[in-house]
Amino acid sequence: MAGVNSTALLTDHYELTMVQAALRSGAAHRRSVFELFARRLPGGRRYGVVAGTGRFLEALADFRFGEAELADLAAREVVDEPTLEWLADYRFSGDVHGYAEGEIYLPGSPIMVVESTFAEGVLLETLALSMLNHDSAVASAAARMVQVAGDRPCIEMGSRRTAEGSAVAAARAAYVAGFASTSNLEAGRRWGVPTAGTAAHSFTLLHDDERAAFRAQVDSLGAGTALLVDTYDVEQGVRNAVEVAGTGLGAVRIDSGDLLGQAHAVRAQLDELGATGTRIVVTSDLDEYAIASLAAGPVDSYGVGTRVVTGSGHPTAGMVYKLVSREDDEGVMVDVAKASRNKVSVGGRKEAVRRLDNGVASAELVGIGEAPESDGDDRPLLVPLVRGGEVVVPTGPEAVEAAREHHRRARAELPRSAGRLSEGEPCIPTRFIDELPAPRQALGTEDTDDR
Amino acid sequence: MAGVNSTALLTDHYELTMVQAALRSGAAHRRSVFELFARRLPGGRRYGVVAGTGRFLEALADFRFGEAELADLAAREVVDEPTLEWLADYRFSGDVHGYAEGEIYLPGSPIMVVESTFAEGVLLETLALSMLNHDSAVASAAARMVQVAGDRPCIEMGSRRTAEGSAVAAARAAYVAGFASTSNLEAGRRWGVPTAGTAAHSFTLLHDDERAAFRAQVDSLGAGTALLVDTYDVEQGVRNAVEVAGTGLGAVRIDSGDLLGQAHAVRAQLDELGATGTRIVVTSDLDEYAIASLAAGPVDSYGVGTRVVTGSGHPTAGMVYKLVSREDDEGVMVDVAKASRNKVSVGGRKEAVRRLDNGVASAELVGIGEAPESDGDDRPLLVPLVRGGEVVVPTGPEAVEAAREHHRRARAELPRSAGRLSEGEPCIPTRFIDELPAPRQALGTEDTDDR
Repeated sequence: MAGVNSTALLTDHYELTMVQAALRSGAAHRRSVFELFARRLPGGRRYGVVAGTGRFLEALADFRFGEAELADLAAREVVDEPTLEWLADYRFSGDVHGYAEGEIYLPGSPIMVVESTFAEGVLLETLALSMLNHDSAVASAAARMVQVAGDRPCIEMGSRRTAEGSAVAAARAAYVAGFASTSNLEAGRRWGVPTAGTAAHSFTLLHDDERAAFRAQVDSLGAGTALLVDTYDVEQGVRNAVEVAGTGLGAVRIDSGDLLGQAHAVRAQLDELGATGTRIVVTSDLDEYAIASLAAGPVDSYGVGTRVVTGSGHPTAGMVYKLVSREDDEGVMVDVAKASRNKVSVGGRKEAVRRLDNGVASAELVGIGEAPESDGDDRPLLVPLVRGGEVVVPTGPEAVEAAREHHRRARAELPRSAGRLSEGEPCIPTRFIDELPAPRQALGTEDTDDR
Repeated sequence: MAGVNSTALLTDHYELTMVQAALRSGAAHRRSVFELFARRLPGGRRYGVVAGTGRFLEALADFRFGEAELADLAAREVVDEPTLEWLADYRFSGDVHGYAEGEIYLPGSPIMVVESTFAEGVLLETLALSMLNHDSAVASAAARMVQVAGDRPCIEMGSRRTAEGSAVAAARAAYVAGFASTSNLEAGRRWGVPTAGTAAHSFTLLHDDERAAFRAQVDSLGAGTALLVDTYDVEQGVRNAVEVAGTGLGAVRIDSGDLLGQAHAVRAQLDELGATGTRIVVTSDLDEYAIASLAAGPVDSYGVGTRVVTGSGHPTAGMVYKLVSREDDEGVMVDVAKASRNKVSVGGRKEAVRRLDNGVASAELVGIGEAPESDGDDRPLLVPLVRGGEVVVPTGPEAVEAAREHHRRARAELPRSAGRLSEGEPCIPTRFIDELPAPRQALGTEDTDDR
């Protein structure tokens, strides 16, 4: 129970003071259900992508208050002595069900359901939200980019535009959503994401001239490398590149200017020089809209930085973690929800299936208290992640590959309207089904005529 | 040289392949100057705030390739054997000058100047940018919030809306920019930022009714605590709060609805109940504009979450790290810059001073190759951070306090136009002064008539 890997302080002060007060009132030990969900999708998006689950499950195993953490909490008088004693023995012993990593989510989808005592569950609020909100924001943006890129690979290159730990998580999330590779080396080591990269402008500027730089790069990395041709003049750069590397040059990269116009010019020039197999990589503040605008151009792959790691305008997924049910004095579970008008929550433990009609998703059905009545085609969405405190699914690089594959299949089920970049309603509606079979509340659109 | 704390893989693949190619060409050992700067301020802001410097300096000390990192790079064939051998001995041995943490920056300000061999300096590109871009984005947004909040404290509460590591860094950056405290416990332990927090809606919902919840909280945390009054009905909540805690209640928190209208109603109700000293804390998607709109309301402090940790619409500061000068074959330093039209960089090592007229900043003077000619009032901006590979400034919690104080003083020097929330020009212009005394290029506005 060492402090070095502890994740226990990656949380908010008030979670510990709530535990203190609830230990004193006795309510700390009431059985409770917390759910993690998003009230809406950011920016009129058509769907969201769950990511971060595997990271959360690894962090959960390290969520222990060791000597270092306890000493700090004591020194700063965050909580009292009985609470410190309780924290010293803390180990999550409950159950967690959730959407598989890579799954599509919609407004109101019960993305994660945590069942434990109040005290055990409330402590996980910030850790779960930090990881799911960030990673899902990146994956949701990445999925749109992958979708418009079609068969052309997207490379995640945004490490420098986000904090160093987020960079690793963002590379992982983008890969889950279909990116081909990343520039981030730690994401390669930690999560098995393929890494890629060639050279920056500084490498060209370091050498006496562009040809000397290209020669150095080709000598070391082979003619299959990608040469950056826009440090001085693109046309001269392409000429230098082919002269130095030969017509077997792997790729050229363009990182500035009118990308579409340049791609056409560079393609024509490469073909004229006989480098018909040389690919064109474009980078420079790309997002899903810029990628869409390049779809008709002779571009072979997209390097995406800032916009993917910052969620393309929506750097957080806005998910919340709410108490939806808890035990009363008689040991009976009671559904609970905040009443304030503009922050509607639906009480009660949820189950969810995706309704499929001939393999095409038509609704997110969320049952309260029990599973929605299901026809044969429906796909259950909640899978067991933790049982009695033990993580029951893989979490390492193989889980990232599985999440990527899961995402590919779940994405393929969505109706055609999911592919729209314009702002609008979610591509399928969320329907809350009460214990009674009639729909109780719908979030999202009923407009599913389009496929 | 253990792998556990190594920061060496928090970088991009291409930095290592550039080192490989430059080792082969021999250019790797050319003396080089890299500079970190921002071409512009995001979103028409009037100034930016440097943060993350202390974190970078700590990470620099751990930037070593240990056995684990080298084994991974070898297994994934990122670089060749001679490069692995060079990396095994890597230890930054150069000099770094930079703006003090907390300093104001403007477009073109030479925020960090790294002098070393090419290979030593190029490896730090991503690590430095990740930390400075993220932390400065948060600090720059936080400073605007602090400015409009005036004497009312701002509390950072956004951990759940950003990745877990970014949450700690964001709490630290917001504190540098003047926030009073954070909810993030790790920021308290790691950086000495004061932490604060009370209770969530789940705590109220856990108990049989609101009064029972308030009673539990007051019993445990004392009447000085803040009670969250909007779980059910705010008016009833305030009544319950004062009945349970008495008129000595520390604070009530409102987290939803029309905050201004409710603040007025709650203040009147509290006063009527005799709780004239009870403070009002508001939270709920606040940003600098929402804070400004509450300035005339009876609000005592602001809890700010999503918008501060995501840079209030600008989650990255857009800083870049560019080679500006390098040695040639004769050992002479040559200024270099990329030529492409839309990504202007200015070659040559920079020095910078802030010109002060009667204590008020009027321009950012940036000299190329030597310090700008200075009158007595000018304040030099670049301070030594690393000499011969050794960090020469403090980096722990005391450095965070120093950065906070430095920011307070630097902010106080700015002209009154710095306080404008509207989009516009930087509050002072940046002037590049060549070796000749005449101005060579100006970035930003000349419009400084306003103070």
